[in-house]
Amino acid sequence: MCGIFAYLNYLTPKKRAEILELLVNGLKRLEYRGYDSAGVAVDTADDKDIAIIKKAGKVALLEEEIKNRSSELNMDGSTDIHCGIAHTRWATHGVPNEVNCHPLRSDPHNGFVLVHNGIITNYKEVKVFLEKKGYKFESETDTEVIVKLIHHFYQKHPSYSFRELVESVVQQLEGAFALCFKSKFFPGECVATRRGSPLLVGIKTATRLATDHIPILYSKEDHPTSPINKDADSNSEHRPYGRADYPTLPRTGSTSEFEPLEDKQVEYFFASDASAIIEHTNRVIYFEDDDVAAVKNGSLSIHRIRRGGDDPHKREITTLKMELQQIMKGNYDFFMQKEIFEQPDSVINTMRGRVNFETGNVVLGGIKDYIPEIKRCRRLMLIGCGTSYHSAIATRQLLEELTELPVMVELASDFLDRTTPVFRDDVCFFISQSGETADTLMALRYCKERGALIVGITNTVGSSICRESHCGVHINAGPEIGVASTKAYTSQFISLVMFALVMSEDRLSLRKRREDIINGLRNLQDQIRQVLKLDDKVKVLAGDLYKKKSLLIMGRGFNFATCLEGALKVKELTYMHSEGIMAGELKHGPLALIDEAMPVMMIIMRDPVYVKCMNALQQVTARDGKPIIICEEGDKETLAYGYKTLEIPKTVDCLQGILTVIPMQLLSFHIAVLKGCNVDCPRNLAKSVTVE
Amino acid sequence: MCGIFAYLNYLTPKKRAEILELLVNGLKRLEYRGYDSAGVAVDTADDKDIAIIKKAGKVALLEEEIKNRSSELNMDGSTDIHCGIAHTRWATHGVPNEVNCHPLRSDPHNGFVLVHNGIITNYKEVKVFLEKKGYKFESETDTEVIVKLIHHFYQKHPSYSFRELVESVVQQLEGAFALCFKSKFFPGECVATRRGSPLLVGIKTATRLATDHIPILYSKEDHPTSPINKDADSNSEHRPYGRADYPTLPRTGSTSEFEPLEDKQVEYFFASDASAIIEHTNRVIYFEDDDVAAVKNGSLSIHRIRRGGDDPHKREITTLKMELQQIMKGNYDFFMQKEIFEQPDSVINTMRGRVNFETGNVVLGGIKDYIPEIKRCRRLMLIGCGTSYHSAIATRQLLEELTELPVMVELASDFLDRTTPVFRDDVCFFISQSGETADTLMALRYCKERGALIVGITNTVGSSICRESHCGVHINAGPEIGVASTKAYTSQFISLVMFALVMSEDRLSLRKRREDIINGLRNLQDQIRQVLKLDDKVKVLAGDLYKKKSLLIMGRGFNFATCLEGALKVKELTYMHSEGIMAGELKHGPLALIDEAMPVMMIIMRDPVYVKCMNALQQVTARDGKPIIICEEGDKETLAYGYKTLEIPKTVDCLQGILTVIPMQLLSFHIAVLKGCNVDCPRNLAKSVTVE
Repeated sequence: MCGIFAYLNYLTPKKRAEILELLVNGLKRLEYRGYDSAGVAVDTADDKDIAIIKKAGKVALLEEEIKNRSSELNMDGSTDIHCGIAHTRWATHGVPNEVNCHPLRSDPHNGFVLVHNGIITNYKEVKVFLEKKGYKFESETDTEVIVKLIHHFYQKHPSYSFRELVESVVQQLEGAFALCFKSKFFPGECVATRRGSPLLVGIKTATRLATDHIPILYSKEDHPTSPINKDADSNSEHRPYGRADYPTLPRTGSTSEFEPLEDKQVEYFFASDASAIIEHTNRVIYFEDDDVAAVKNGSLSIHRIRRGGDDPHKREITTLKMELQQIMKGNYDFFMQKEIFEQPDSVINTMRGRVNFETGNVVLGGIKDYIPEIKRCRRLMLIGCGTSYHSAIATRQLLEELTELPVMVELASDFLDRTTPVFRDDVCFFISQSGETADTLMALRYCKERGALIVGITNTVGSSICRESHCGVHINAGPEIGVASTKAYTSQFISLVMFALVMSEDRLSLRKRREDIINGLRNLQDQIRQVLKLDDKVKVLAGDLYKKKSLLIMGRGFNFATCLEGALKVKELTYMHSEGIMAGELKHGPLALIDEAMPVMMIIMRDPVYVKCMNALQQVTARDGKPIIICEEGDKETLAYGYKTLEIPKTVDCLQGILTVIPMQLLSFHIAVLKGCNVDCPRNLAKSVTVE
Repeated sequence: MCGIFAYLNYLTPKKRAEILELLVNGLKRLEYRGYDSAGVAVDTADDKDIAIIKKAGKVALLEEEIKNRSSELNMDGSTDIHCGIAHTRWATHGVPNEVNCHPLRSDPHNGFVLVHNGIITNYKEVKVFLEKKGYKFESETDTEVIVKLIHHFYQKHPSYSFRELVESVVQQLEGAFALCFKSKFFPGECVATRRGSPLLVGIKTATRLATDHIPILYSKEDHPTSPINKDADSNSEHRPYGRADYPTLPRTGSTSEFEPLEDKQVEYFFASDASAIIEHTNRVIYFEDDDVAAVKNGSLSIHRIRRGGDDPHKREITTLKMELQQIMKGNYDFFMQKEIFEQPDSVINTMRGRVNFETGNVVLGGIKDYIPEIKRCRRLMLIGCGTSYHSAIATRQLLEELTELPVMVELASDFLDRTTPVFRDDVCFFISQSGETADTLMALRYCKERGALIVGITNTVGSSICRESHCGVHINAGPEIGVASTKAYTSQFISLVMFALVMSEDRLSLRKRREDIINGLRNLQDQIRQVLKLDDKVKVLAGDLYKKKSLLIMGRGFNFATCLEGALKVKELTYMHSEGIMAGELKHGPLALIDEAMPVMMIIMRDPVYVKCMNALQQVTARDGKPIIICEEGDKETLAYGYKTLEIPKTVDCLQGILTVIPMQLLSFHIAVLKGCNVDCPRNLAKSVTVE
């Protein structure tokens, strides 16, 4: 997840200092979406060239850099028409240094510059194509192929409009993106588009807009437009739908009439979300996938290449009624809540470009060169703290099954305390959302010294764990702001599952199993959405529980990790004493705690340990326990025992933990709200534990 | 731990049925000391021979067997003078079958028969000696060497009295024992002795005893008595101090005067503890180590070979004032309490005959043949449930350090749920007090099928885990009656430490470390006694805690297992929600629970993780936590932070967990008593979990 922002002023005189301040402030609002580097591109002081200013680290450092270069940037100079683009990064490809920082450029002369939020999954193929054409790449990003490709098309089709060039480019791209282009060749213009990643535009005019929507223009034929069709295409190209000129009722697409305003002054604010523009205007258009929006001569037009049957004719101009804080959190009151509800998307981002659901092929670019070495290892060790440790517990069994290697799961702190023996033929995984967790990092160094192969599993490209690993998997969950980890857990989980799939690709006897898992992964997004619909029911449950002192969460097998993780969430957020209990250990002690007053949750799925779980359930009910049961949808036999129940869709056993953990996340969240706890910043805790 | 019992009636006519009933009832009272087989030896119906009746299993099965053989035993026949011996067994050497069952015999003609409680550590050497003399051994017990040795001496010194023969024998024995001998060659006599194991005699007479003590007779020279000294020795031999003839003030040993009672009738009851005799008489003498007590012609005499400077002249005849239940539990109200306080002895029993504190040599007879194979293994896996699992966690670090092998610790249930990969070159330890824990046993079978080497660590010889293991260590803690395990834990702990020592015997670089550990083991008994003196202080602490809802117990490194085990004890016994928390994980979640109301215990020793523990402590106090600190004696720096404190003597880091767990055992016990919980049978729990 990154934040992109573009500002275009048309016939609205602004000092360069104002423009830069506006861009930087936009980034600051988007910083929650990523904060490992930031950059802007504006016209140079002589208006003849484009200046790119980049800085690794938070936006504040970029701001400082701009100050340092103020003389060169002619801060006091004013400009009537100008387009600036800006970016705050959450690294997915390439470490967060200045070279990988956006905006990226097409060539040393900055013909085109680009900001991008998302992941291009076919960038390697495009890169090979462009390298053959002589392009030299300077960054490790996936983004750079886009801006070089548009340059390539520009040279090939010099007559194309800026928008046509962008349309040509995006047809070559796979993956997710929101893009804002600026070009030396098209001064004062901006083209933006999206697929999968969010994008909107805010419109600011001095006078009221004459319309509340903008028509969509459909190209009549496929792109890239051949010179023969140039005229037909330019039909839409030369009808400006933007600026303050909005069509009244543009039902007919390219032939609508306009009612120009007297005042030609207009400002456009493209952004990843409304938080960056709400201070400027409350009039916005949310773009849909494959919309291409172009501003030329101060007019905004929206284009789509093909018209589908039900496609609308227009995009509404929405009036934002929300506060800034609300917008940053979307429709949610808390970042944690938002992050829980982001999981249908974050799990897809984790798999994007890695799992090919058609062929059943899984590729983890970051470790694929090391797979043969890993296959020859003595054992796998998974090392982490807190939630990251739980993701290792959740996937240990599958790793054992698919790799047939011994798998050890270790708490980083205990691993270090024990000065555990590590050998040259060990493969050690270090799991950390931030990539900076002190204990995990020190365990990494300890293992590296002893010659083990180091694999990082982090959400933060360029973090210490990333840099010091031999190879790794970036979980691509996007920045996690809430201190209690939610979407990072499910993405860590999936990353380790994908690793297990990679390790077993060649195993004939596991083909069916792998198919089932890949099928499970394919359905995960929908199933997570379905689980999230339990929110109201979980809230009621939270109302029953929030005054209790204790909560036991029991399960075993593939769902044991959910018990540990659920208990940790409840502890962290609600300060209620909660404990995850291995159901198999019940008779060895914890059963003594059970009576009608002790709240108990049990996770009972129709997996290989179902019968054993039912035994545990009966032990609990025999002692007057009143279990809250999380079980499979429609499993009447199990439901009958529940004092309260939550039904979860069935998936393959080894992925079930992803679905069962979500009600626990919701429950801890709702209990915390009911108890008046600070959800996003629980007492005594910090997001990234960078001390031992 | 076994129970021994002997009944001698002199001039007191009894039916054989009565005698057998009396013996069997004595065993029933002692059954808590062991219950894997039982046996009696009485005179045959014709008084010419000795009949031995044995049965594997509980005493009730022996009783049935006697009933079945009633015709052969001439149950209605009466006898005026008779000696019967009986035994209920807790196997330490040899499985609990009938052959290994006591009484054991010297030869097929039952010349001598013997019951024994304890462990003879040099039995293999004695066995070799006797085998050379042509003795054929029929059992796997250590005990059989004793009864064959007395036969050997009898044949060598036909003029020796029964008591002299016993004196000759015990001088050849190392280890712990309480013994009762009966012999065909000495009808109506009984000789009993002890060293390390308990023994007392109850005296029943129709009229009041004339004295309240019995003088001790000291032999004038070393044994075995040579024929030359026969007369000198017989000086004491022929002065009967027993029966109802007790000296008034026998200050001078062998020359004291007697005051015979008119009534010659007397009955003697030898037993491991008073529970077996309290229903017959309340007049008892507790023997001291190396006392040899002989009954001949109805008279009891007590002999010692050498006189030390401060040795007393007499043994008091004590009047028991206690109830039966009290006696079975010693001075304790509950078995669990008794077992906690038995730990100074049970840890010694675990090490007896294994650790040579002089040479630093450690021998584990049960696995020594497998050590070369174990040294070549791929990894060690320690598998158990509940407390047994914690003993594995407690010793994992030391095993890693001294073996330099990867060590995995697994919950048996989870291990099975995961169908964990196991390989032919794995060595798997199965830890279970009862040796019957279902999950652990199934995990054993799972590993055995896959070709791993199976090592059993149990407290119950002949249990399923014992039988199905390739080799193993018997922890020799004695029967554990309280459902919550205490002394078994410390003995499991020590057994695994001894294994680590065996594995590193040959390592020059570890010599100093091994010395430190062996030194630590040597001092353990005294240090445990010292810790047990904290009992009153812990009781006060329990008074502060018993109304709380939750208790967190934190520590790391070598003391983390104490946190888990302490929390389990509190859970089991007090039904209070208690959790052991890895101090290193505090910042990853549990710290949110801390405020001034949440009870927290922290274990902070001056070991390699001391500084890290102090960090955790400061985090807790910074959040207004009021930690109860368990730390080293006199560690003022740490004590200063404690809201309450318990000071524990320092031992070597890897043994510290044995000392720190004891206050936790005491605490859980006292809280349970204060809450009125059933200490020995906590609700919902059973001692041995023989179902999954």
